[in-house]
Formats: sequence, C-alpha cells, structure tokens
Amino acid sequence: MLQGYSIPRTPAGRSSLAPQPPWHYTGEVLAVEFTADPQAVAPFLPAGLAPASGERAGRCALYFCDWQFSTENGLDYLDPLTSQYRETILLMACERDGASASFCPYIWVDQDLALMRGLIQGWPKQFGRTGMTRGYGMRSPAAPSVSAGGRFGAALTFRERRAVEAQITLQGQSHRLPDPGFASTFNVRHFPRLTAGRHDDPAVHELVQLRARDVAVENPMIGQASLTLFDHPGLELAAFTPVSVGEGFRMSVSLTVDDLLLVEDYVLPGR
Amino acid sequence: MLQGYSIPRTPAGRSSLAPQPPWHYTGEVLAVEFTADPQAVAPFLPAGLAPASGERAGRCALYFCDWQFSTENGLDYLDPLTSQYRETILLMACERDGASASFCPYIWVDQDLALMRGLIQGWPKQFGRTGMTRGYGMRSPAAPSVSAGGRFGAALTFRERRAVEAQITLQGQSHRLPDPGFASTFNVRHFPRLTAGRHDDPAVHELVQLRARDVAVENPMIGQASLTLFDHPGLELAAFTPVSVGEGFRMSVSLTVDDLLLVEDYVLPGR
Amino acid sequence: MLQGYSIPRTPAGRSSLAPQPPWHYTGEVLAVEFTADPQAVAPFLPAGLAPASGERAGRCALYFCDWQFSTENGLDYLDPLTSQYRETILLMACERDGASASFCPYIWVDQDLALMRGLIQGWPKQFGRTGMTRGYGMRSPAAPSVSAGGRFGAALTFRERRAVEAQITLQGQSHRLPDPGFASTFNVRHFPRLTAGRHDDPAVHELVQLRARDVAVENPMIGQASLTLFDHPGLELAAFTPVSVGEGFRMSVSLTVDDLLLVEDYVLPGR
Amino acid sequence: MLQGYSIPRTPAGRSSLAPQPPWHYTGEVLAVEFTADPQAVAPFLPAGLAPASGERAGRCALYFCDWQFSTENGLDYLDPLTSQYRETILLMACERDGASASFCPYIWVDQDLALMRGLIQGWPKQFGRTGMTRGYGMRSPAAPSVSAGGRFGAALTFRERRAVEAQITLQGQSHRLPDPGFASTFNVRHFPRLTAGRHDDPAVHELVQLRARDVAVENPMIGQASLTLFDHPGLELAAFTPVSVGEGFRMSVSLTVDDLLLVEDYVLPGR
Repeated sequence: MLQGYSIPRTPAGRSSLAPQPPWHYTGEVLAVEFTADPQAVAPFLPAGLAPASGERAGRCALYFCDWQFSTENGLDYLDPLTSQYRETILLMACERDGASASFCPYIWVDQDLALMRGLIQGWPKQFGRTGMTRGYGMRSPAAPSVSAGGRFGAALTFRERRAVEAQITLQGQSHRLPDPGFASTFNVRHFPRLTAGRHDDPAVHELVQLRARDVAVENPMIGQASLTLFDHPGLELAAFTPVSVGEGFRMSVSLTVDDLLLVEDYVLPGR
Repeated sequence: MLQGYSIPRTPAGRSSLAPQPPWHYTGEVLAVEFTADPQAVAPFLPAGLAPASGERAGRCALYFCDWQFSTENGLDYLDPLTSQYRETILLMACERDGASASFCPYIWVDQDLALMRGLIQGWPKQFGRTGMTRGYGMRSPAAPSVSAGGRFGAALTFRERRAVEAQITLQGQSHRLPDPGFASTFNVRHFPRLTAGRHDDPAVHELVQLRARDVAVENPMIGQASLTLFDHPGLELAAFTPVSVGEGFRMSVSLTVDDLLLVEDYVLPGR
Repeated sequence: MLQGYSIPRTPAGRSSLAPQPPWHYTGEVLAVEFTADPQAVAPFLPAGLAPASGERAGRCALYFCDWQFSTENGLDYLDPLTSQYRETILLMACERDGASASFCPYIWVDQDLALMRGLIQGWPKQFGRTGMTRGYGMRSPAAPSVSAGGRFGAALTFRERRAVEAQITLQGQSHRLPDPGFASTFNVRHFPRLTAGRHDDPAVHELVQLRARDVAVENPMIGQASLTLFDHPGLELAAFTPVSVGEGFRMSVSLTVDDLLLVEDYVLPGR
Repeated sequence: MLQGYSIPRTPAGRSSLAPQPPWHYTGEVLAVEFTADPQAVAPFLPAGLAPASGERAGRCALYFCDWQFSTENGLDYLDPLTSQYRETILLMACERDGASASFCPYIWVDQDLALMRGLIQGWPKQFGRTGMTRGYGMRSPAAPSVSAGGRFGAALTFRERRAVEAQITLQGQSHRLPDPGFASTFNVRHFPRLTAGRHDDPAVHELVQLRARDVAVENPMIGQASLTLFDHPGLELAAFTPVSVGEGFRMSVSLTVDDLLLVEDYVLPGR
C-alpha cells in the first residue's frame, strides 16, 4: 500500500514532497504596504471575495520572507539545504461577507517542497528568487542595525528578470502589523484536468481560507519604505503599480499549518 | 473573470504557470534499461496496475532528457531561459488488464513550468538536476561522436546529493525503443486535502494514462550501458538497485501533450 | 610537493580548478553584429590597442555559446554537470599595430571551472546566465529549423537582472564569420595586490592575445537579427547601445587552447 | 584610462568584480574541530610552512559561514542578491618559524564576487553550496534555540555531490575559539601562465598571510559535534578523514579585509 501525503507516494512514505502536516515555520519577514488603483486590482479577486472598500480600497502589501521549516519530528532543520527557502508574497485587501480579508494574486518561492505545500493550501506558487538584507545583531559596516535608522533591502527575480525592489528604513517598534496580513489569507485551490474537452473543467477549484495556528510575531519594527514593481512579460504586475507607498516592517514570525477552511458555498465562476 | 489553465489565474490569463494545452516538446534522450528485484519494486505500483510478469518482471528504465517546449503560438522557444529543462524519469514495467504497461515511481525536473505541467499529468515530479553529455555533430576531442564508439554520460542530483549515474557507449542504429517506454505511462494524479481530519482523503486520486500524440523518434542508437543508483535519505531507490543492466539508448524525440486518459474504474486503495 | 596548474594545488594534483592545458572545446554559437557609438566604446580599450577605424569604427558583436569541454584524457565530457557551460561574450573591434583586431570588455559564464580558465587567458569573466534556443534537428513545433526561416533567441541575465536579449532569423548559409571574431581576441591579464599601499599596483597586468588552435567552424548560417542591451547598475553597457544592428549568425565551433601570446612591449597605463 | 581594482576594468570603474578594499564582512559561523592523520595531511602544506607538532599534529577545523559584505559606502547590503554568500572553509594547523599557524587547503563559496576577492587573498576558492541551520531567536519547533541543547546542521555540496556533513549540539558559552583559526591564515596566491612552455612557471606564486582587522566575535557557543567527509572524485578529502572529532562552535563574526602580508623570503618549491 502506497504511503505519503503528497506525490511521490511510495511503500515507505519517505519520499513525499510535502510531508504529513503539521508544518512548522519560523522566519524573518520584511513587508511594505502600498496602495494600487482599486479598479485595476479588483479583477484579480475570485468569486466569493469583494473589493476592499473605504480606506482599504486598493490596499496591498508585499512580504519578503526567509523561512526555515520542520515537521513533527522537529529535526528537518538539521538538513538546511532542504528546510530553508525564501518567498515573496503579494497580498491585496478584500472583503468576505462584509469583513476585512486578504487575497494572494501572486507568490514566489525558490524550492520545490515549499511549492508543493503551497499548492495544497491554494497559494499560487511559482518559482522566483528572493533576496533580503540580513541583520546579524553585531555592530558592523556590513549589516544594518535592527533598530531605528537600520536600512534593509529586498528584491524578487522571476524567470531571470527583476520583478520587485524594496527598501525599508526602520524608525522604531511597531504597535501594529501590516495590512493586508497573511495568516488568514483567502486562496483558490485549483487543479486542472488534462482530459481532452475538459481543459476548462478543473478537478479542484475551491475558495479556501488559511487557518495557521500558533502564530507568533516578535520584535515588529516599522519605518519608511520605497517600492518598485517592474514590467514582466510573464506577470500582470502593472495593475499593482503603487499609487502610494505606505510603511515598511520587519519582524520575526513563527506559525504552524495543518488546517484549511473550505468555504463551502463557493461556486465556480463562469468557466 | 479570472483566466488561465493553471495558477496563477489572472484577468488577462498571461500568468498561468502551465499554459493552455497543447504542449509541444522536442528533446534529446539517453536511456538505460535495467532489471531490479521484482519483489522489491512491485510495492511501488498503485492499485489498478499489476507487476510485470515473465521476462519483463523487474524490468525498469531510466531516461535522461534535455527538452525544449512550446505552446500553440510556437514561439515560446525564443525565450530559452523559460522553455528548456532537463528531466530524469524512472519507469518500471507493469501490466494493466494483462497488457504490458509502464508506471513512473519517480521523476525529477529542474524548472517550475515543467513541474506544474507534470503534476497535472500525474507525473510525481520533484526537483533534481540532470546532466547529459552532448553530441555536437562536430569532430572534436570535447564531444563524443553520435555513432558507434561514442560515449555519453548522464547524472542526476537530488537535494544536493548524487542520486544516479549512467554511461552509454553507442554501438549502432537501434531497431527498437527502450522498454518500459514513456509515451503511454500510467500515473496517479494526486492532490491532497489540508482540512483537518481529511489529510488522508485527497481531493484528487485517480489512475490515468498518458495520451501523447505526434510522437516521433529519430536516429535511435543502441549500445552498452552502465548504471549506478545511490542511497538517498529522501528517496527509496534501494528497491531499484540494478540486478542487471541492459542496453543503453540515445535518440531524438518529439511529441505533443493535450489529453489524458482517466481510467474510470479506479478505486482508491484503502486510505 | 604540491601539484596542479591552478588552485587548489594538492599532493595528487587532482583538485586543480583549471586543469592542465590543452583545453578542448566544442559548442553551438549564436552571434549578432552591431555598431555602437565609436566615441562611447573607445574608452574601454586598454593601452596598446587603438580604436577601430573606417567601416569597423564602433563595430561590436555579442556571442552566445553553449560549450562542452574536455582535457587531454578526452573523457571529461562523461561528467556533464562539470564539463558544460554557457557563455555570453561582448567583443569590440579595435586595431593593434594598424591591423584589425578585437577586444573583450565583458564576458559572462555560469561555472567556476570556466571562470578560472578564463581569468588565466585574460578574459574578464563574471557570472551570468545565458539562454539560447536550441535546434534539435527534428521537425517539431517546439524547435526552430536550422535552415532559412528558423528563429533563435538568446538572453543574458547578470546578478538577477536581464542584461541582453537577441533574436536571429536564419536566411541561409554564411560565407563569412562575424566581425569582430573571438579566436584571437586581445585581453588583459590582471591580478591585483591586496597588500596595503599597493592596491593600485597589480601583480600581473599584461596585454595578451589568444592563440586558440585547431579552430573549426561548421555549418555557419546567417540571417536577420535584433538586439537589446539593458541598463544594469553593475555594468556600463550604455556605451554599447546599438546604433545599428547588423546580421545574426549560428554555427558550430571547436577549438583548443594551450597557448597565449604575451605582447612584450606592453607598458602599464598610468596607474 | 581604465578603472577598477579587478576585472572587468572599465572607464567608470563601476564593473569591477572585486570592489576596491576595504571589504567589510559580518556573518554567522558554525565550526567543528577534528584531528586527521598527521602524515596524511602534511603533504598539503606549501613550502614555508611546517606540519603542526605536539597536540596540534593533524588538527583541522571546518568552518561553515553565512556572510554579508559591504564596501566603504556601507550600502552594498541593500542589494542582498549580490552581497550575501555562504562558504565552507577547511583549515589545517601548521607552524611558521616555530609559531602556531593555520593553512587552507580547500574552500568553497557560492558566488563570483566572493570567489574573486578570495583568489586575490590566496584562498583557493571553488564553487560549492553550503547549508547551515539558522537560529531565528524565536521559540519555534522550526528552529533550534541558540542555547544549551540547540542542534545545528551544516552541509557542503561540491559539483553536485555531498562533500561534508556536520552537526553540533550546543552546550554553553565558549571561552575559546576553534583552533586552527581563520583570521590570520596562510595562503598561496597563485596565478598561472598559459604561454606555451611556461605552464609550470606561474606569474604569481607567493606565500601570504591574512591581515584581517577589526575582527570581532560575539556570543561564541561550544558543544558536541559530529562530522563526515565524503569521497569526491574532484577532491582529495580522504587525507582529512577525521580520526577524532572535537568540539563544535557557533558564533557571530565581523571583520574587515584590506591588507595582506607577503612573506618575503618565500621561494617557489621546485617547479
């Protein structure tokens, strides 16, 4: 009998690309809030989500994350070439049943284990290379101080083209987190069919909401930010061109993933 | 309305990781036939497939492929950093309804577009780095002749460890193709659920058979081969340790993918 | 006694990053001729070389190469993960003692063995990722025909930014090779000192000329070309902005390197 | 006039692979002390250095480093895709004029800027991929605590084969640093000639000693360690097979490089 939470499923179950949940994560995160044209970004929302209104209209955030993960045995991190990855997440504010929510139109990771776990959660993961300035906690001309005045850069490359660049200058401790936030993002799980005549009839197409647990944030810092999105032939980022750039953030995060809310009343939008 | 065959689905549909089929491929292929212990490999078969019998018992093949692909516009190959990838495929002989067939327990690619298209076909794709000696068609001490006596090497690295090494010395034109062959392989499409309590109840779990069309093979060569599979903590390759190594092959291949046979009577094995 | 042509030098001499010459190469090459502003590119020439004059003034070429190499044992190519690399070469026309010559201001490879062998020859090699459309010799929608009408793309990425893009549409056999050509390029071997006070006094700084031997070109094709160079914060490519783009080429090349001409009368330019 | 500390030298001098010193570094370091067979490792020493004696005979250390660097402007780190790299350093104890010293037979980095700066210092740098468990400073099942009981892994891959694996379990603050140490290592700067007949007569071949300044170490931790070196066809690591494995370390380091001591009386060993 074949074993394994994801492919490849094997007799011993030791080969599964996505291991059996729970999946524990910890990481350093840089984030930049910005506002795009509400009319330009609204078409990125799937059925079941409404555009953000009021002061959240057009509100977006880019997150740059340097993650390490482990499964229940707690020792995956002893094989760092497998258990670390970097990620860039684009989130847009939206509403669900009148409540504030967030949705992810694009996300990029640099590793196949992270890609598979993401697909299962509905994250639309593709490959991209994320870079982030690191604060080492030492006084050195080679690293920013993780305190007021410290300057951090972040960048995303997708298919060998620069897609995003950001800089953040810290000003002090933050008493809030970036909005939209990522811990309870809505995503669409989508798994197509290839059988002739059914290319437009996916086997899975369902609105879901993340249910990360044990979410902890430490040492959140806030500051000034700059942000540039570049045209890219394989993306539709022009819609997200910042009309204004808000504040920047740096924080440490940890969380656990082993559940997902299926939004039951979801109906496939006119395929 | 969101567009796109796969994620990310967007207003213009230009971002889909797997483009709308058909997908056209052409490539150079090295292959090595070998026989493993039939008892060791049989447990890798999913429900619906039976172990190969007779002289095909334990028969396997490793394929190393250097692909370029294009979609219907025919010009994807003008962006080579996106449209090329290398792949290693492990196939095992099996039977379906008493007929000879093949199944893929492991496959490795080096690119996310190829990974996504593979998952949709049921290929259990993970990331790995494949290397293959190239014949340039010139007389040079830096390349083998694509004729009798020419020597070709191939290697697979998975998660920063060498997993497979092979060498082939060509002897002449081949009048047959390697067995098991890959054009009508059986795979299992598998897309898990993450909702708590349903981790063992995948949203998609179905036996399928490839229906590649316009399959063409040119200049098939045959020769002697050697093959080594290495232990790997993230794989279960020991079961496939060669008991004997058969012949080696080199060929050029082209094919088109836009269909998949869903094997209707398939029932999920005791989950 | 330590052995080895380059570092690392070891007791057995098996570790040398650049193996003992001769180095044999074979590869596929795409090239595009173009003309830049002669005044803009002239300052890139080192002492000992004069700007090209007449119709060669401002003449440049970009080469995209997909190489495989071997040393004297002839079997390095059986380890393809080590013996293959891709390269982009920017050449500019110049003159030496009144004769036509070529000089390389920038070159990018994707591998450390190639980098070290390049530095020893004076090539100013940095890392970059080169992509090139491949012609597989089969009739397929996934690859261009290597004949009139076949279209090939090439691209260079440097430090995660796109730096060069080119396209070539073949028109027929070529009766000439691109100018400037690369087989007898002039380079400057340069190895700095780090001792305090001597940062501007390199240990090696000498004008040299390549002496590749056994240079063979097969199946040279010529056609129309387009070319774009992108601004890059780590390069000075603006000087090479094409004023006009000439013809494009595709060819197979093989050559051997085991000699270099030291231009004896060379004097270090005012350091 | 061409500008730049290293190649490529250009009119504006903005392209130099190794920027003008000083070079500032900060990083996290894991290290493991071990002892190899003194007779096996002694032949790796160049002329001018003597084998370590007494209790230092055969003493070696492996360092795994996660660096960020900057030049004098202090802002290179805002482009993290360029200014970060990982490194594995093998050091062996030795003596110079009767005093304790260290020498580097092998070192691996993952980036060309780091490679070039290393070659100039005499480090025999090749490409390799280093992984290191990261402590994020948060309580999480996905990361070890940077305190007693915290477990860290490290690994090196060279040319697509695993070369080194290590694990360290911290026990507490350390009152000493690993021996041999890397801040004043001896290296051999070696730049070969390619001119025919002079392949064995390098243009530069000189014993040098690092003169890093402003070396600071913070939060040094010590603990138990395990270490495995794997056979590799491109290395001679068998000589360094651990006879016994000593203690493991973790620390934060910063330092500045802008000088190098040329050991004047050095004579090339019988070339």
